[in-house]
Amino acid sequence: MLSRKLTSEFLGTATLIATVVGSGAMATALSNDVGIQLLINTIATVFVLYILITLLGPISGAHFNPVVTGVDFFTKKIKGKEFSLYIIAQLAGAAVGAIVANLMFEYSAIYISEKERTGAHLLLGEVIATAGLILIIHLALKQKEDKKIARLVAAWIGAAYFFTSSTSFANPAAVFGRMFSDTFSGIAPKSAPLFVLAEIIGGLLGYLGFKALTSKARSGK
Amino acid sequence: MLSRKLTSEFLGTATLIATVVGSGAMATALSNDVGIQLLINTIATVFVLYILITLLGPISGAHFNPVVTGVDFFTKKIKGKEFSLYIIAQLAGAAVGAIVANLMFEYSAIYISEKERTGAHLLLGEVIATAGLILIIHLALKQKEDKKIARLVAAWIGAAYFFTSSTSFANPAAVFGRMFSDTFSGIAPKSAPLFVLAEIIGGLLGYLGFKALTSKARSGK
Amino acid sequence: MLSRKLTSEFLGTATLIATVVGSGAMATALSNDVGIQLLINTIATVFVLYILITLLGPISGAHFNPVVTGVDFFTKKIKGKEFSLYIIAQLAGAAVGAIVANLMFEYSAIYISEKERTGAHLLLGEVIATAGLILIIHLALKQKEDKKIARLVAAWIGAAYFFTSSTSFANPAAVFGRMFSDTFSGIAPKSAPLFVLAEIIGGLLGYLGFKALTSKARSGK
Amino acid sequence: MLSRKLTSEFLGTATLIATVVGSGAMATALSNDVGIQLLINTIATVFVLYILITLLGPISGAHFNPVVTGVDFFTKKIKGKEFSLYIIAQLAGAAVGAIVANLMFEYSAIYISEKERTGAHLLLGEVIATAGLILIIHLALKQKEDKKIARLVAAWIGAAYFFTSSTSFANPAAVFGRMFSDTFSGIAPKSAPLFVLAEIIGGLLGYLGFKALTSKARSGK
Repeated sequence: MLSRKLTSEFLGTATLIATVVGSGAMATALSNDVGIQLLINTIATVFVLYILITLLGPISGAHFNPVVTGVDFFTKKIKGKEFSLYIIAQLAGAAVGAIVANLMFEYSAIYISEKERTGAHLLLGEVIATAGLILIIHLALKQKEDKKIARLVAAWIGAAYFFTSSTSFANPAAVFGRMFSDTFSGIAPKSAPLFVLAEIIGGLLGYLGFKALTSKARSGK
Repeated sequence: MLSRKLTSEFLGTATLIATVVGSGAMATALSNDVGIQLLINTIATVFVLYILITLLGPISGAHFNPVVTGVDFFTKKIKGKEFSLYIIAQLAGAAVGAIVANLMFEYSAIYISEKERTGAHLLLGEVIATAGLILIIHLALKQKEDKKIARLVAAWIGAAYFFTSSTSFANPAAVFGRMFSDTFSGIAPKSAPLFVLAEIIGGLLGYLGFKALTSKARSGK
Repeated sequence: MLSRKLTSEFLGTATLIATVVGSGAMATALSNDVGIQLLINTIATVFVLYILITLLGPISGAHFNPVVTGVDFFTKKIKGKEFSLYIIAQLAGAAVGAIVANLMFEYSAIYISEKERTGAHLLLGEVIATAGLILIIHLALKQKEDKKIARLVAAWIGAAYFFTSSTSFANPAAVFGRMFSDTFSGIAPKSAPLFVLAEIIGGLLGYLGFKALTSKARSGK
Repeated sequence: MLSRKLTSEFLGTATLIATVVGSGAMATALSNDVGIQLLINTIATVFVLYILITLLGPISGAHFNPVVTGVDFFTKKIKGKEFSLYIIAQLAGAAVGAIVANLMFEYSAIYISEKERTGAHLLLGEVIATAGLILIIHLALKQKEDKKIARLVAAWIGAAYFFTSSTSFANPAAVFGRMFSDTFSGIAPKSAPLFVLAEIIGGLLGYLGFKALTSKARSGK
């Protein structure tokens, strides 16, 4: 039933972005050490991703991410209508999640970020973070390890928060939602388009990597 | 056997609150960075929740929380007598847990908190934290993922400590117990009623959300 | 085969104490924040406990702790000879582990701790930490959750490092080994006897709690 | 198919070293507390190791480490040609991983480390870290716990980052890759040979320990 799937994508993306933005706001309120701030931001995100993918996966596939949905569309697992509606649900959820986080921490409901995130090195980070995400999801599906996707994706995002220079947005819906909060995890609208472009490129590379790693040999065994 | 169930609820809630209060007291004794303090408080709580739900779940259902028990009562899974006795066991356990923590850290056995926690934004945090808790428990049960409830609930509380503005009490018994210790995780009695009200509202919303996400379609498949 | 069991107990206890002492030494070398120091000490201990119980459990039962072995002796699961030899292997392993850690961090091989740990509140912490440990192990065995003991025990010790005032030694072999290193996790010999006494009392209480929680009702079901 | 195995070893080692180097660079950019820095470095490494071993294990065995491959060669599980090609893929991957991390954090692509790591105590740390790694892998295989190797190895490296004085390189490919980045996790080329030697000795000791712990008794059962 499509409406239930869309509710799941909306609610999941909203919870994810509320977690990312809220834990960032909490972290900067509590500590002056940016390492500790990112640690708090990461642990909250990892825990919530694990929960959301475990429980909403059986309902909507737990995408919460237009790149994930896009790969399913281009590989013809879903149709155009579902693709479009999923993305709308994800973007709406992301915005609502950020707004809820703003309200929880006594900011204006809508509080556009002024945090510029620019430079080729950050975009390289986004490409790698998103490529890894797509590769992991498809490798796990191929190996019939569906049950492990929740912890694999949570672990990947947790690691990529720390080891990619962009702190791994890896998700255009996350970029969209994070524009609505001028806090730790925010991103200024003018930095957003290149982040999204990098994520789309990353998604493509991740899928090509998956194909390279699992394709049959040309000749013989 | 009811008496064994009540022992389980008492012991589990006592251990949970001793952990919350004790790790808070430890954290403030060791670090001046409030981010580190909350990190210590969170990790201890997550670990103990995982243990308690895993081992006491088969005995009493591992509620440790009047909102969880209340939802079971209103959905007629348990009767009025069991409902009342569970809550008494939880409140008694919470108070004893806080007292034990006070004694472990050389405070007076009873040491009423003066930490005011007020403001609509904190109550919003409590609503969200409790709604998520109830939604997660019921979704997991519906999906026959009983075995994962321990880690899902532990992960949710761990995340909500960081991303909700109230640091996620999400439990009237926890509110009750935390009044008995004027330490990191305490709450002044005068702040308690609205916290409990927010948790009850959150519990209701969580259950309604669960119904919305899992109800059959009105027409056709 | 007894000799293989003793090798396992020796190696496991040595690795456990090398981890506890070594990570404590590392932590104080890297940070001035005692909260961070305890965090590092805890994470290392949790990870190693999980590994040791998983892999050495099938060989020797993975006690590494005279209280655990003692409960098995008094409940007649093992005989006097095995009991004595296990404890000797554990104490020898603990001392060797501490010595190896001292050498890794350029201290004298034997470097007796002068860190006094006194006060009834710390002993209460030890009683609780050890009681919980014994209760968890026996509840898990009773519920045929043997496979989860590694993570349950690791989680318990991780939580108890933070929420018990004594930072949870919970193990007379750990007390013995930690005397050999005057570092973060050390304990002065003159504080040791009461710690061990508290652990024995905790072990007894834990086993009584287990019996109370699982005993059949006196009359009827 | 050998070429797919080599792709897996190359990609896995590259991702591992990009994580180690990248998270080290991130950590020093965010915090002045070296404890926090190592914590960030550790969590990222643990998460990525878990992912890589889970998903690439079924393809190439997920060695990413010449000592692991070497033990397989000397115990005749793989032949000389595969042994050589694996090591070439691992070393190439390690260098590429470090270079990618350098680029993500705006350093020169190749930026040779000047961080000297010397002293017998550090080499003792490497021996212990590598011995434990090999022992764990072979014990888990022997006990048919293949499915747990990802988390066991991740937990071991996580613990050894904290409790061994060398912060556990435990992998000649990691030593090789880390020479290419003068950041937190780097190592000066002149310190490399003894580290590699210590790791080889550790690998040998780990395998001997495995044999001692699992060998049949000489006489009778």
